[in-house]
Amino acid sequence: MNAPTCKDLLENMGYANKMKTIHVRTTTHAELLNVTNEVRTAVKEFGVSDGTITLFTPHTTCGLTINENADPDVVADFLRQLEVMIPWNQPFYRHAEGNSAAHIKASLMGFSLTIIVENGSLQLGTWQNIYLCEFDGPRTRSLFIR
Amino acid sequence: MNAPTCKDLLENMGYANKMKTIHVRTTTHAELLNVTNEVRTAVKEFGVSDGTITLFTPHTTCGLTINENADPDVVADFLRQLEVMIPWNQPFYRHAEGNSAAHIKASLMGFSLTIIVENGSLQLGTWQNIYLCEFDGPRTRSLFIR
Amino acid sequence: MNAPTCKDLLENMGYANKMKTIHVRTTTHAELLNVTNEVRTAVKEFGVSDGTITLFTPHTTCGLTINENADPDVVADFLRQLEVMIPWNQPFYRHAEGNSAAHIKASLMGFSLTIIVENGSLQLGTWQNIYLCEFDGPRTRSLFIR
Repeated sequence: MNAPTCKDLLENMGYANKMKTIHVRTTTHAELLNVTNEVRTAVKEFGVSDGTITLFTPHTTCGLTINENADPDVVADFLRQLEVMIPWNQPFYRHAEGNSAAHIKASLMGFSLTIIVENGSLQLGTWQNIYLCEFDGPRTRSLFIR
Repeated sequence: MNAPTCKDLLENMGYANKMKTIHVRTTTHAELLNVTNEVRTAVKEFGVSDGTITLFTPHTTCGLTINENADPDVVADFLRQLEVMIPWNQPFYRHAEGNSAAHIKASLMGFSLTIIVENGSLQLGTWQNIYLCEFDGPRTRSLFIR
Repeated sequence: MNAPTCKDLLENMGYANKMKTIHVRTTTHAELLNVTNEVRTAVKEFGVSDGTITLFTPHTTCGLTINENADPDVVADFLRQLEVMIPWNQPFYRHAEGNSAAHIKASLMGFSLTIIVENGSLQLGTWQNIYLCEFDGPRTRSLFIR
């Protein structure tokens, strides 16, 4: 067997891939959409063995986070408390589109995630799932994976 | 043409660059300073073709985020609502410098961003711009890019 | 001296390492545990010269952030204000484990950090330290470093 080329090594580590774009459809005004399976599929397609994977969502009213999937009440409590913290209506909001709360919530979650891959497997904790956080839906949203 | 060397490949992907430091000046106590052009310039200088770019701000009272640039009211609403959530004065704050609110806001935004580059172009969404979030200005702030 | 191999170059940049797992013990219900020294040790062990290091915590009720270490009141004010924003008890919380507040705080901090390394040195600001944010302790927590 020949020694691995530089490109081989880089591909194994996930640094020689092209970006993959996934489109998802949210169905309500505010929701956490589980995209863990989509990310696992991309890791397999990329053939990443040991490295990191980068997720990025190119919007300003939705974000990305990780949280528990076992009990759906976690997500429900999460969205309700965010609504208490950042009310949809505030007397001082001036943004004409009326969705300033969604812009703020999205920045609080963030737009990118970096997750470690080891032996071809996404290194999430037992209870961790990856969520696209919709704060002004329903809409079609994009997720970039690299 | 010779096959690309390992260093060539790594440079194309943005993994063989040195860190670049940018200094910016904020002019008010709290503001979101648009640094998108500075980041685009760095991507060009680095010659990154397909990879990721890492931004990092080495402070504890300013952070980094992405949000909408089209309507300046988004940023104004954003800063006002953050002030409601994390008031500058709280009876229980003990930090002698008096800027605990700025420390908290900075952690909520985060100190690093990872953005994908594809065909030499920063993969931001149509409405996305990159902001340095000043919460205790005016000051001169640093932004590390790699 | 021979030209560096691809693997040499990748190792210098921190892209050819295996993930390291650190276990830490938190001692109270909510605390920011300083893990800066543990991360600096990993940078040395990895032999990263110029690149980035990725931190990730595989939990859903603790997160990662960066903040000031000089005055311990910063951390105390930080935790108290987060408790005001996201109270432990809310009449509408339904999650049976009763720790919804911890799940929300963890997502606000985030689960990963990307930090630049230059000349073998972690590029933190003068006042920046790295914290594991415990929101439902005391527990043993894991930190992945790559």
